[in-house]
Amino acid sequence: MRTEHSLELKPIGMIRSPYKNEGSTPYHGDRGEQISQIEVFEEFEQGLQDIEGFSHIIVIYWFHKSMGYHLLTKTPWDDIPHGLFATRSPHRPCPLGLTVVELLAREMNILMVKGLDAIDGTPLLDIKPYVPEIDIGSVVKMGWLEGKLGKGRC
Amino acid sequence: MRTEHSLELKPIGMIRSPYKNEGSTPYHGDRGEQISQIEVFEEFEQGLQDIEGFSHIIVIYWFHKSMGYHLLTKTPWDDIPHGLFATRSPHRPCPLGLTVVELLAREMNILMVKGLDAIDGTPLLDIKPYVPEIDIGSVVKMGWLEGKLGKGRC
Repeated sequence: MRTEHSLELKPIGMIRSPYKNEGSTPYHGDRGEQISQIEVFEEFEQGLQDIEGFSHIIVIYWFHKSMGYHLLTKTPWDDIPHGLFATRSPHRPCPLGLTVVELLAREMNILMVKGLDAIDGTPLLDIKPYVPEIDIGSVVKMGWLEGKLGKGRC
Repeated sequence: MRTEHSLELKPIGMIRSPYKNEGSTPYHGDRGEQISQIEVFEEFEQGLQDIEGFSHIIVIYWFHKSMGYHLLTKTPWDDIPHGLFATRSPHRPCPLGLTVVELLAREMNILMVKGLDAIDGTPLLDIKPYVPEIDIGSVVKMGWLEGKLGKGRC
């Protein structure tokens, strides 16, 4: 069985960041010191209860500037194109972005975070607590990216 | 500015797992030894090139059995309700699931993975390479979940 129909999402908030366009975001893996604000719409504020107990959260958002994609894609990390799903390119069939960020503070429905590489105005889809027991893989291999980090968005 | 309109996603594949209903999945944090198959639809197969170099991948999927949500939610981990976004409950405004899994093998457009807690028939939305430099937070605090893991889905 194949699910042909579309799935619909409504944003739960908006990201306010110092990065005003795609070219200005730090590359994934190069966690900046810049602070971003995550505005969770007021109707969802109660869902943030106890979030301030976590030092890190997973932020899922919509790559709203993404226009189309290529299944083989070149990245700043390598001269050779790689399969899209072996990269973190924002140009994907489902343009979902995901960043683990440090949660600095919460003021009502606003979260102050460090390390978020989304541009200003990015629609927020979900927030999850970051839990090492769940979210850390005991990594042995990181494929084509081995030794290449620090140069650009993978 | 608030984005009121819906965002549409189309699945890129389907998860085939030994878990036939919600009650049968292992709790998040209790990584099972069971093996699941991720079928990426053939039209996207080229995007998997080089994925087999990574020992772990991030799988993003649609909680298709999720029906509604409560902003305060009780989990099997605690007697006290917590804000939804401070839990990993599948019942969320944007029902997006996220699991870091071990990639065992790839055969064409099929990935064999270990540690995926999605039920059979779950629509697949995205696959990203898991990269420790990007995806590991140097965690200091894990809030209400501290010391509670191992008992149920958070």
